Amino acid sequence: MTRTLDSDPRRDGYRMPGEFEPHAGCWMLWPERPDNWRLGGKPAQAAFVAVAAAIAGSEPVSVGVAAAQYANARRLLPPAVRVVEISSNDAWMRDVGPTFVVNDRGGLRGVDWKFNAWGGLEGGLYFPWDKDDAVAQRVLEIEGCDRYRAPFILEGGAIHVDGQGTVITTEECLLNRNRNPGLSRGEIEQRLQRYLNVETVVWLGRGVHLDETDGHVDNLCAYVKPGEVVLTWTDDRSDPQYEISRDAYERLMTARDACGRRFKVHKLVQPGPLHTTDDEAAGVDAAAGTKPREAGVRMAASYVNFYLGTKRVVAPLLDSKRDGAALRKLKALFPGREVVGVPGREILLGGGNIHCITQQVPAARTRRK
Amino acid sequence: MTRTLDSDPRRDGYRMPGEFEPHAGCWMLWPERPDNWRLGGKPAQAAFVAVAAAIAGSEPVSVGVAAAQYANARRLLPPAVRVVEISSNDAWMRDVGPTFVVNDRGGLRGVDWKFNAWGGLEGGLYFPWDKDDAVAQRVLEIEGCDRYRAPFILEGGAIHVDGQGTVITTEECLLNRNRNPGLSRGEIEQRLQRYLNVETVVWLGRGVHLDETDGHVDNLCAYVKPGEVVLTWTDDRSDPQYEISRDAYERLMTARDACGRRFKVHKLVQPGPLHTTDDEAAGVDAAAGTKPREAGVRMAASYVNFYLGTKRVVAPLLDSKRDGAALRKLKALFPGREVVGVPGREILLGGGNIHCITQQVPAARTRRK
Repeated sequence: MTRTLDSDPRRDGYRMPGEFEPHAGCWMLWPERPDNWRLGGKPAQAAFVAVAAAIAGSEPVSVGVAAAQYANARRLLPPAVRVVEISSNDAWMRDVGPTFVVNDRGGLRGVDWKFNAWGGLEGGLYFPWDKDDAVAQRVLEIEGCDRYRAPFILEGGAIHVDGQGTVITTEECLLNRNRNPGLSRGEIEQRLQRYLNVETVVWLGRGVHLDETDGHVDNLCAYVKPGEVVLTWTDDRSDPQYEISRDAYERLMTARDACGRRFKVHKLVQPGPLHTTDDEAAGVDAAAGTKPREAGVRMAASYVNFYLGTKRVVAPLLDSKRDGAALRKLKALFPGREVVGVPGREILLGGGNIHCITQQVPAARTRRK
Repeated sequence: MTRTLDSDPRRDGYRMPGEFEPHAGCWMLWPERPDNWRLGGKPAQAAFVAVAAAIAGSEPVSVGVAAAQYANARRLLPPAVRVVEISSNDAWMRDVGPTFVVNDRGGLRGVDWKFNAWGGLEGGLYFPWDKDDAVAQRVLEIEGCDRYRAPFILEGGAIHVDGQGTVITTEECLLNRNRNPGLSRGEIEQRLQRYLNVETVVWLGRGVHLDETDGHVDNLCAYVKPGEVVLTWTDDRSDPQYEISRDAYERLMTARDACGRRFKVHKLVQPGPLHTTDDEAAGVDAAAGTKPREAGVRMAASYVNFYLGTKRVVAPLLDSKRDGAALRKLKALFPGREVVGVPGREILLGGGNIHCITQQVPAARTRRK
């Protein structure tokens, strides 16, 4: 039974836990649209299968698939992965799925944000996006979780929380006039406070260079644990990413979180720079209303775009010269977890990476005070 | 996690329980096709909503809905009913859903029969039926149940079991050459024995007069409890139904079930006869490949086509002159349950009734020997 609630998580004593807290499972969607994924989506499907298989070694995985691709997805995904029918416009479960919130009495609910395809008719990536906007509700129906329908456009990739009162986000995305133009910075903070149940909003500036989501934080910076984050980095001052990462670093070093802590910031060197090839761009359909994929464009590649599973960190392999160092760094940051690399270029070609295509379901837990 | 198993329920110690045994829930589908349901399916949708609401008072109900009707179904169904996306060709969950089987150690699995729309290209009711044939798997994925894919065409409405080794079925349906023409009566019995884990097949002759399913038993005769059945009946010797019910009665009175019992047979007077009106037929689209709905045709109306829920019996109201007596009879037969009548004519117009549009999920239980 899924009720749609009129209140908000803060009022009801629910909070979004950190991704590093234990999970009950993970949700994904299935890529298929040929105007975003090359060669009819087949290489991306193989990449998603590898991601699902890797996460399934850590926690239960469910994949939502539109009817016409169901049999194909069921055939390609491992038997341990649950496949259910869910229509969507594309496959970014982080951004279209629910943000789960928990209380300390075993409750689990979902926030269903409004979605406009990363900017609606002013810079959004495709039109229409009605099926995407309905995904969160379908996930919540299957999970049997009550739902908050937040009156506010937000994507899950635009926020990272520590579960202890702090959210990190970016001005480039949340203050963009193509999201919630009627809301001031203060009003946006209030909404984050109510729907995530946080006290402190840590504002970074811009996201990764050329990130078409308008700078989602999850491609730039992620929590390792409360008070500790990992930031994509380059030492090349001629790279536009340098100033972005430098600015984020400085903001983090001067910020205090909701618990009064200073941040410990780990730098994770970026791959590439990576650019789309002629071959890759040629495999994508042109379509009215969809942002074209052109050859030679620099992609917003980042190792920070990993999934932080209960037992495994699943990170993208993107650049043979840098992958080894990136995985070693993640192993050092997550000593209690296995770090698994999965080829991520085919996901990156579609505009995101492993974190963008996943959404964790936190474990509902009862806590003694 | 849903595995497809190569064995069969008998070999694995699973059996189909009687519908009168406790349920974990009930599955339904959502009617929409305008070539079977009049007026764009709206009156049928209202009837399905009433059925779902009535059963939801007894046990959890899940309704599968194709993507395009999801928002409408979610709006119309009560909040307590779970709505999930499942594509289908029509809305007969009894016939296209899984037949659940249990063991005595808390196990729950599903049999996914092959489906050919009640006769395939030789008298079937519509073409194609590929989405229907895929419904059972989707239900089992959501339920997390392992699956037996039975190499055999069968609809759930063609069988009733006592959970103690007996299945009742009809020759008209199971021996029809439009189902499994390569199999003899004995071979069909063997398959029922393996997939339902029964010993004894009680063969009735024909189903209800003009039943377009080729005589499904669930419109004719249903278990009240082991050894005791309810049979649709008329005392009018000029009605073609008289000979059918009389023959079934005699076969039942001479049969023994797997436990060696004789049957106690309760007669339940039929409604009507009921015929489609001009208005009703006029509201249905003509479509290539679909059996037309014509005015003045007698419908296979029966009060036996009820849902036997854990706490409630949900029965169709079909005939103001007979409904009262039918409900009283059901109340007498099921003294431990509430008997709820729901208007059934709009379901009957589509070719079946409440039992046909529902599929119970038995409660998984651990039994001491």
